[in-house]
Amino acid sequence: MKIHGRHYRTIWPRPDEAVEVIDQTRLPHSFETAVLRTPEDCAAAIRKMVVRGAPLIGATAAYGVAFAMRAEPSSQALIAAMDLLQSTRPTAVNLRWALKRMHDALHRHSHGDRFQIAWAEAGAICDEDVEVCRRIGVHGLAILRAEAAGVRGPLQILTHCNAGWLATVDWGTALAPVYMAHDEGIPVHVWVDETRPRGQGASLTAYELGAHGVPHTIIADNAGGHLMQWGRVDLCLVGTDRVTRNGDAANKIGTYLKALAAKDNGVAFYVALPLSSLDMSLASGAEIPIEERAADEVLKMTGRLPDGRVATVAIAAPGSPAANPAFDVTPARLITAFVTERGCCEASEAGLRGLFPQ
Amino acid sequence: MKIHGRHYRTIWPRPDEAVEVIDQTRLPHSFETAVLRTPEDCAAAIRKMVVRGAPLIGATAAYGVAFAMRAEPSSQALIAAMDLLQSTRPTAVNLRWALKRMHDALHRHSHGDRFQIAWAEAGAICDEDVEVCRRIGVHGLAILRAEAAGVRGPLQILTHCNAGWLATVDWGTALAPVYMAHDEGIPVHVWVDETRPRGQGASLTAYELGAHGVPHTIIADNAGGHLMQWGRVDLCLVGTDRVTRNGDAANKIGTYLKALAAKDNGVAFYVALPLSSLDMSLASGAEIPIEERAADEVLKMTGRLPDGRVATVAIAAPGSPAANPAFDVTPARLITAFVTERGCCEASEAGLRGLFPQ
Repeated sequence: MKIHGRHYRTIWPRPDEAVEVIDQTRLPHSFETAVLRTPEDCAAAIRKMVVRGAPLIGATAAYGVAFAMRAEPSSQALIAAMDLLQSTRPTAVNLRWALKRMHDALHRHSHGDRFQIAWAEAGAICDEDVEVCRRIGVHGLAILRAEAAGVRGPLQILTHCNAGWLATVDWGTALAPVYMAHDEGIPVHVWVDETRPRGQGASLTAYELGAHGVPHTIIADNAGGHLMQWGRVDLCLVGTDRVTRNGDAANKIGTYLKALAAKDNGVAFYVALPLSSLDMSLASGAEIPIEERAADEVLKMTGRLPDGRVATVAIAAPGSPAANPAFDVTPARLITAFVTERGCCEASEAGLRGLFPQ
Repeated sequence: MKIHGRHYRTIWPRPDEAVEVIDQTRLPHSFETAVLRTPEDCAAAIRKMVVRGAPLIGATAAYGVAFAMRAEPSSQALIAAMDLLQSTRPTAVNLRWALKRMHDALHRHSHGDRFQIAWAEAGAICDEDVEVCRRIGVHGLAILRAEAAGVRGPLQILTHCNAGWLATVDWGTALAPVYMAHDEGIPVHVWVDETRPRGQGASLTAYELGAHGVPHTIIADNAGGHLMQWGRVDLCLVGTDRVTRNGDAANKIGTYLKALAAKDNGVAFYVALPLSSLDMSLASGAEIPIEERAADEVLKMTGRLPDGRVATVAIAAPGSPAANPAFDVTPARLITAFVTERGCCEASEAGLRGLFPQ
């Protein structure tokens, strides 16, 4: 997607065999990039959310493995790098998927070949992610086109957190269909949940929709239910960090509340995912580990002072503690359908298995 | 309740026949008071949320009428003051209730008596609010005592926004039973929704619970559903700005989402109110006017810089618009019971009428 008229991916290889990423902790206040050269750089970038979004985390971890192989191409180093990168964030399964894929690509090869193979494989993961997201966009577009035919005025879409191109290598998952619909001339308007505590909606989703010219309005996370009660949301469309065998979907904390409101008001609730976010090893969402992040993410906020400088302020009562679960699980019964690169399906084991012809 | 060991109400008359209020726009960063001397002062304090919370808005408006009568005790001035004060905030019905009560107390009296009558009546509204809240506390305490008997560890209570003593003249509505339970030695812990966009949970509820020593934890508004899914909430207890004849309850935006989650997880959802928040003239919550507030409340946040100064930062993507509905309506079907100064009742017309023996 484009920023200031120039096409970017969120992660790209440099001629010096480092990778460069958009530093998402600086957005929307400034556009900066960061250079990653070691597995430790990659792990820190994931942990600090310089990069975030399940697919982009996977891509970054893949490069982390490649950097490990450059430093020391032993199997011991491979396992150590995988452990380091796996430990960064527990909820998204793409991280594990990407690490396993790197391991499978590398472990039978001789040490001398491993860096080049790993570098190429990480690049392939990125390229494939772009194509997967494009296909999610195409399948989701069909839904938006059909929904738009039934409404007067712009199609009103509510999304939570950021499942746009900043969460992937390019295009996005939940937002890919939105960009395609907009580009095709379908009038769309996106209600952007600000997504406290980290505010990925207000800072990232609003940023990328604005950069692309898609009409949107930021709302407090509290507001979505009210908008649905008043008929101001035609459908919800979100991403996910992990879908289990039964069709439960973990996503950014608060997604479950919006799914409840959608159900209560007869609003369709779609979850977009690359199949790398699918974890058929878990029977249900109750088994998904939920990351608990630092209390300071709740107690402090970062933004621009009137003079343009970026500052962090403490917003809560001094001395009060905070808890910060980062994800919740939306039960399959609240999900209208999944949108994947292989098409759409019911949120159920049967639905998911139907996407795999073999 | 006490702050720094000294007992305060949120509003009190001064010897010079002005009133003084705790400036709630300064909390939790500093404790300051403001002096109100005119109807315009009172209207501005309500509009800017120097005072907020349905019962406290009513009390402040009553003093606004008294100040109008001091300046000009005509019936025309009375009506003008009522119009001015009524226009400040549309959702809470206590404002209208207090203004009607002032009108009823004044309109048959001669101009020369009106200020003294109004001053006394406003004082009576405040004193009665304290007693009403104390009774809500006693009735709610019976519920908390019974619920606490069935749980191991502290009773886990989730609340939204601020329905504590800062929302009333003293005691609070939803928090009155919590203070009484804590004072009685029942172990309680309160999950405090931060309550974006204005953050009354993080800034006011956490402040007053902390000042009283009640264990509590601030959470993002997104987190409550997840906590309920994991069995970490025993009951929800919130206030309301207006209850309609059928038992629907308007409260701070996002209350509806928590009520949906409570229902989905078998968690009791209680709404505490003084009967001055009851509007039997409206058939259902769909008729309640919902205040739309400034976009800046969503787009900016105020807090303490590391050096202690208070600053406001812009948190969202530059140029993105925001919408800011301030209240939503929780349907009666999601409410376990109302807790009022006359006891508890079902959230229904029959339940509400049962509280009135006449």
